[in-house]
Amino acid sequence: MNETHDPARHSWVPSANTPGHDFPIQNLPFAVFRRAGSAEAWRGGVAIGDEIVDLAAAAGLLDGLAAEAARAASGDSLNALMAKGQFSASALRLALSRALAGDSPTALSRCLVPQRDAEYHVPARIGDYTDFYTSVHHATRVGALFRPDAPLLPNYKWVPIGYHGRSSSIGVSGQQVRRPHGQTMAPGATAPVLAPSARLDYELELGVFIGAGNPLGEPVALDAAESHVFGLCLLNDWSARDVQGWEYQPLGPFLAKNFATTISPWIVTLEALEPFRLPWTRAEGDPQPLPYLDSAGHRQRAAIDIQVTAALQTAAMRGKGDAAAAVSRSSFRHAYWSVAQMVAHHTVNGCNLQPGDLLGTGTQSGPDESESGSLIELTRGGKQPVVLPGGESRTFLQDGDTVTFTAWCERDGARRIGFGRVEGTVLPAHPA
Amino acid sequence: MNETHDPARHSWVPSANTPGHDFPIQNLPFAVFRRAGSAEAWRGGVAIGDEIVDLAAAAGLLDGLAAEAARAASGDSLNALMAKGQFSASALRLALSRALAGDSPTALSRCLVPQRDAEYHVPARIGDYTDFYTSVHHATRVGALFRPDAPLLPNYKWVPIGYHGRSSSIGVSGQQVRRPHGQTMAPGATAPVLAPSARLDYELELGVFIGAGNPLGEPVALDAAESHVFGLCLLNDWSARDVQGWEYQPLGPFLAKNFATTISPWIVTLEALEPFRLPWTRAEGDPQPLPYLDSAGHRQRAAIDIQVTAALQTAAMRGKGDAAAAVSRSSFRHAYWSVAQMVAHHTVNGCNLQPGDLLGTGTQSGPDESESGSLIELTRGGKQPVVLPGGESRTFLQDGDTVTFTAWCERDGARRIGFGRVEGTVLPAHPA
Repeated sequence: MNETHDPARHSWVPSANTPGHDFPIQNLPFAVFRRAGSAEAWRGGVAIGDEIVDLAAAAGLLDGLAAEAARAASGDSLNALMAKGQFSASALRLALSRALAGDSPTALSRCLVPQRDAEYHVPARIGDYTDFYTSVHHATRVGALFRPDAPLLPNYKWVPIGYHGRSSSIGVSGQQVRRPHGQTMAPGATAPVLAPSARLDYELELGVFIGAGNPLGEPVALDAAESHVFGLCLLNDWSARDVQGWEYQPLGPFLAKNFATTISPWIVTLEALEPFRLPWTRAEGDPQPLPYLDSAGHRQRAAIDIQVTAALQTAAMRGKGDAAAAVSRSSFRHAYWSVAQMVAHHTVNGCNLQPGDLLGTGTQSGPDESESGSLIELTRGGKQPVVLPGGESRTFLQDGDTVTFTAWCERDGARRIGFGRVEGTVLPAHPA
Repeated sequence: MNETHDPARHSWVPSANTPGHDFPIQNLPFAVFRRAGSAEAWRGGVAIGDEIVDLAAAAGLLDGLAAEAARAASGDSLNALMAKGQFSASALRLALSRALAGDSPTALSRCLVPQRDAEYHVPARIGDYTDFYTSVHHATRVGALFRPDAPLLPNYKWVPIGYHGRSSSIGVSGQQVRRPHGQTMAPGATAPVLAPSARLDYELELGVFIGAGNPLGEPVALDAAESHVFGLCLLNDWSARDVQGWEYQPLGPFLAKNFATTISPWIVTLEALEPFRLPWTRAEGDPQPLPYLDSAGHRQRAAIDIQVTAALQTAAMRGKGDAAAAVSRSSFRHAYWSVAQMVAHHTVNGCNLQPGDLLGTGTQSGPDESESGSLIELTRGGKQPVVLPGGESRTFLQDGDTVTFTAWCERDGARRIGFGRVEGTVLPAHPA
């Protein structure tokens, strides 16, 4: 912890000091933005209250490492900044924190763009996207639906299970998601059909952006793993459950997942999350991890208490002006595997991670069934509809539904750190 | 078929006319190259006999579409050429075929670089890599080892099964592959161990490079699918079978596959493969595919007879100067799903393919056990070693082993079209 975490620090940007704001001076998350509808170049920005510090404009006002970092973030992706590693982003954070602190605007005031005027881009060129499966509660509840005889497989408590996802279809908050067609096999049918998915779901996840990469053939040790992480965002791993059930064996989910993945524009750095660390523990009776996934330092602080929520607003609710209804709420502290374990496991075979690569945490579900991060869990496989305020109900998503995730960290003695939001709306399937 | 396929056409590059050469004037495959060990810029090239036409140098000698195509191929990847679509590459092929034909060298002779002086780069920036599973014989034989009770799953004959692989670890022929560490669970053990893989295998595949992409949300129809394909290469999907067996459920292979994938430098265009088309058929009793995977035109010509082989040379054989020994031989005509079906299926949910994306065909194994495209099949799960000339034997790959794949098309009345080779050597694992 350093001066950037000081809960007493306030900013000359008034909105940043609003209690409960997602983006106080202690946060300073990164995005790629431009003025909405303009032909301006996309460039990196840092959120402060309701404003964005334009890093392309700010670079000339900064010195040394911080100026270099801001210049690296001046293009249409954050990859060059990510590649510089954690000290570079940290130097920029410190310089911005100082320049934004206090009562009197500094020269940086000329570099502010209001968030209400901005549109956002996917913040990095994502080379490879890997999705993990870190919630044992999600794995158990979904496993029971797909494999009643073997809900949690024997490898789960040893292997941080993950698989490769699709980079090309990752979009930023606001993505309009076309309901996908896919093959499904009805119970008792003798042949599958191609039809629009009737079991479209969301998955409430966090995304982890890789900073500095590792060369092919060179694993990253657990205690060095976090130095390869740039920061975290929100991630909706849209899923067509009927397609998934028919296609996923033996090589895993494919078309059930790769039609769209939506992420939040803002990436919250690990440094900003520092006050919300928790010890990493295993429940009584669970195996201790193998040595490459275990260390004293890891046990001390590898968990992070990030609260996550999903809310649903149907077209009818939108029409009536009704607010979105909360449907899922959990915390990343329930994850069975940590961010560091994801990185150490992913690279233990020498697999190379590159700056801008994205790891999904998998759906975050808590121990209680009400803390489920997907509709398939909440509705017990579509058998028990979720009733929405206003009287509508849902088993799975309908056309026109908007799904919104938020996340934040809170504890006594620290300023609240928010992730903003990720939002996506379901469009009707194309006619066949 | 057009004049570029004329088997009587010969070239003023003498080596191109050698009977049985991989690169006659009827082939003209694409790569990215430079002079070995030089600081020259990487640029696109086209093989003719033992030479490479330097496209950056040749662009100024060509006109119209062909010149534009050559300029698009003058950078360090073929993505820009791929993005232009099939007519652009075809125009370049025609122009080069004419300029290389006949008895007298043209101005193009100043643009030739001998292949013996060249080194190669991965020919495209590969955004996403998807691996299919198109050989029913491979799926059945491997399935019997992993799941004796259910070797071929019920979806296989309906769904062109595929999954996402890792782009970052794809290398070009000559790749040195570090033996990966991974978690494995011994039969009867109560806990897994982390150790170097003891069951390292190759998989004999073809790679399919995407040309023109499709927008997110817009499927590609079967009859349009091949217009999105740039060409084919050789692909070795290295696999750690012991890691795979323990990790692959429920989300598919991950660390067992993503430590390395090696491809050949040369991409043979679909146009060059035109003379080797075969009708696409289903065996008696097998289901006809769903309509989105079926058409009259597809049935008429969607299969391609590409013969593929794998050869193994151990360090001891190399020391004695013994040639590599053939271990696998099959043909892509045995594939259960065609290139067009892979593209149509991949996009039926709206998933967007982008220029330079790579699809693997999955291991190509024929109906006879001797036609198996991997060691796990040839050795029945490591139980029946393959004996090599010279007396050594192998169940799985040993350190120092070099695996080489070749592929070619041959039939009466056409010039042989070859793919060159893809080669990779196993390095010992890092000490723990």
